[in-house]
Amino acid sequence: MIVPVILSGGAGTRLWPVSRSAYPKPFMRMGDGQSLLYKTLDRALRLADGGTVLTVTGRDYYFLTRDEYANHPDADLDKLPFLLEPVGRNTAPAVVLAALHALEHCGADATLLILPADHLIRDLDAFVADAQRAAALAEDGWLVTFGMPPSSPETGFGYIRMGAEIAGREGREVAAFVEKPDRETAERYLAAGDHVWNSGMFCFRADALIAAAEKTCPDVLAAARACHASESGQSSPVEFAREAFLAQPDISIDYAIMERAKRVAVVPARFDWSDIGSWKAISDMDAETDSAGNRVQGQAIIVESENCYIQSDSRMVAAVGVKNLVIVDTGDAVLVADRERSQQVKIVVDRLRKDNHQAASFHKTVHRPWGSYTILEDGEDCKVKRLTVKPGHVLSLQLHNRRSEHWTVVNGTAKVRIGEREFLLNANESAYIPMNTVHRLENPTARDIHLIEVQCGDYFGEDDIVRLEDRYGRVQSKV
Amino acid sequence: MIVPVILSGGAGTRLWPVSRSAYPKPFMRMGDGQSLLYKTLDRALRLADGGTVLTVTGRDYYFLTRDEYANHPDADLDKLPFLLEPVGRNTAPAVVLAALHALEHCGADATLLILPADHLIRDLDAFVADAQRAAALAEDGWLVTFGMPPSSPETGFGYIRMGAEIAGREGREVAAFVEKPDRETAERYLAAGDHVWNSGMFCFRADALIAAAEKTCPDVLAAARACHASESGQSSPVEFAREAFLAQPDISIDYAIMERAKRVAVVPARFDWSDIGSWKAISDMDAETDSAGNRVQGQAIIVESENCYIQSDSRMVAAVGVKNLVIVDTGDAVLVADRERSQQVKIVVDRLRKDNHQAASFHKTVHRPWGSYTILEDGEDCKVKRLTVKPGHVLSLQLHNRRSEHWTVVNGTAKVRIGEREFLLNANESAYIPMNTVHRLENPTARDIHLIEVQCGDYFGEDDIVRLEDRYGRVQSKV
Repeated sequence: MIVPVILSGGAGTRLWPVSRSAYPKPFMRMGDGQSLLYKTLDRALRLADGGTVLTVTGRDYYFLTRDEYANHPDADLDKLPFLLEPVGRNTAPAVVLAALHALEHCGADATLLILPADHLIRDLDAFVADAQRAAALAEDGWLVTFGMPPSSPETGFGYIRMGAEIAGREGREVAAFVEKPDRETAERYLAAGDHVWNSGMFCFRADALIAAAEKTCPDVLAAARACHASESGQSSPVEFAREAFLAQPDISIDYAIMERAKRVAVVPARFDWSDIGSWKAISDMDAETDSAGNRVQGQAIIVESENCYIQSDSRMVAAVGVKNLVIVDTGDAVLVADRERSQQVKIVVDRLRKDNHQAASFHKTVHRPWGSYTILEDGEDCKVKRLTVKPGHVLSLQLHNRRSEHWTVVNGTAKVRIGEREFLLNANESAYIPMNTVHRLENPTARDIHLIEVQCGDYFGEDDIVRLEDRYGRVQSKV
Repeated sequence: MIVPVILSGGAGTRLWPVSRSAYPKPFMRMGDGQSLLYKTLDRALRLADGGTVLTVTGRDYYFLTRDEYANHPDADLDKLPFLLEPVGRNTAPAVVLAALHALEHCGADATLLILPADHLIRDLDAFVADAQRAAALAEDGWLVTFGMPPSSPETGFGYIRMGAEIAGREGREVAAFVEKPDRETAERYLAAGDHVWNSGMFCFRADALIAAAEKTCPDVLAAARACHASESGQSSPVEFAREAFLAQPDISIDYAIMERAKRVAVVPARFDWSDIGSWKAISDMDAETDSAGNRVQGQAIIVESENCYIQSDSRMVAAVGVKNLVIVDTGDAVLVADRERSQQVKIVVDRLRKDNHQAASFHKTVHRPWGSYTILEDGEDCKVKRLTVKPGHVLSLQLHNRRSEHWTVVNGTAKVRIGEREFLLNANESAYIPMNTVHRLENPTARDIHLIEVQCGDYFGEDDIVRLEDRYGRVQSKV
């Protein structure tokens, strides 16, 4: 049986300001409104025998990821178990842990289909067919990679040199994995036609993967077994002991297993593929442009400009007399980059992190298990937020030491507790929460509710939340 | 006696998104925090005999302009009379009206020094010396222009060809006014050294100007006399009958008088001068740049970029691998323009106007006679503003048909009337104003107060204000 495993990690710093660590690349929405993560689940569900899809992701992304999954009409959340990483780790631990989990919970014949959550594939029929070819090879004990026939002499990917055809199957042996080449070498690969890009997608039986790990990286396997043994015992979400998790080596599945194992095969893909590695990749995606090659998502005015990609959430962007630019506006930050140099956007994020700047990690809209908030004003004398609470959700029972809050419901009906009082607050009604007063906000209705919160005080940090009870296990946490 | 006349009009559309019709170029702040208008008043006060400075500006800018003037330590508002134009008109009517006003109120010997409010001059001592030279010529009956020795073959300015030296004075006769030249002609002018830029600043006796107008444009003079006769009679602000004002021809002082009059002189300026005509002009101003020629006002991260000018109020701007760009961010809009093509920014404004887009005219922060408001959120279910009310000021007594309001004071103490109740509202207190209820907000204190206003309803336009009383004469007006 095929058990897809979605690996959802990585900050996608080259896609700042849209991708940020608190809401990274897999959550990024494409032109059709679907996130990369949603699209990955969609692919996975087409192949999952019995509807089970494993997800390995960071603990901080658990609620967000579930929310994305819940949007899919075919998703049964009970069949979508999560393995939660206490911190980001490399792919070898993630994949080996997934294999151990699958052997225990999905059966000895589980064939894993490893899918990174931040790739874009549009020809789903071709993808399904290729994945089935890979699964057939995996059944025979091969460790299978998906190789992308190169369309350009790309120097940003690792390559796979293809070897002999595998008799009776549509796939080839892997002759060698090769490092990211220089331009000249990449051009030679492209011309020769015997090299494909290493896509980072794989297919293998769980038991075959474990058997290979036993030989190529016994240390990784031993550490993963110890970590697996530390599981909380719940079927989902699975949480690992932090110490045991961190004891695993930080190594990729490619280095730890694929490059060293025997019987490694490659299926040359017939589907289109992008790892959306940079703004250039997004701006290159085929979509309608104006006669000068400009493409706009959002609102923009373009005057005598060529080959620009402009994306703006809500603000007006004007481009005058410019060429080959990527302009991305997220309401709190704007990126202006040369299309061909958009890889260097990660340098921006490095600098923001060094300066401890909010815009490195958080968006104006911050997602929470119960919904989200958007910061409308962050002044010295007040902070103003727009809150959205999802149906049936509830914020923690909390108090603040350094601020009072004024809530005005602008849409829907909230259930509010302030001190010992509990009451309903309707649209166009407001409530006052004095400093140091226990309070709670709940959405008892079946649709989103919206509030404006005006905070008054002398400090408005998210760490001035004393949580007394929390449905989402955040009593110890600061956010 | 020298009576400076400040002409403050013109939208400065080439400086969008900072300059917009509701808060145009004269209000634009330079790096030192002073507006161009403030700097113009400062220049004027250095020359004003007795401290009187006339200002001709649009009615909509009256309160804003007074506020700017009030910031100047040497300004005595009683000596700063205003002539208010009901709509924008050209410079000939403005100057002739100022001359008629000066003859009546400042005495027969008034020498007018005409100063556009949107020029930048940094060497004030040189400016004062040149203005005194011009005034000496004006005393002799000359109509004097200020000519700027060209520093480049500029094609965007009109030129003055200088004639004979005027004996006993530091000035020359004007041989001819010449239209904006083509590049080749401009280079010839620059090489020859006998041409200067027409700066748009002038100096003449009021009676000499009227005498010249009598000959060169009797129609303009007659219409201005009729308009002058329609004055409300108040010494300031002077308001003209709309019909009489509009009956004046739309013509510049250059065309109507200077180019046709006899005894026209030019003082070649020894001071620096910029008309701040485009973002290029601002980006060219000498100021510190990094080693790659980039200059930043506000916060920005620059990666491998050259010769860029970046200005941002509050948001993070990142530039990656770009060259020769002007990037200007105002919180609600962002401009990305090639430095050399920044003149075309006016096309952006034309398009915004055609689309009736808010960003053509208004900023996120909108100035009012009583203070200002900033739109924090403009949603379908609510609108949120931050209000600032100046000391002693009061908003109109008003009501709304389609929205309720929730006010929370975040700083200071407000006096609030809601229906028949009147009370003080302190920081961290809030009040509710139901729909269709008469209300008024006042600042009874000596410092600015700040409120957050949450509007609930189904329509949030500024035209849903029914004004019952207004200190600023806006009962008929919609804003």
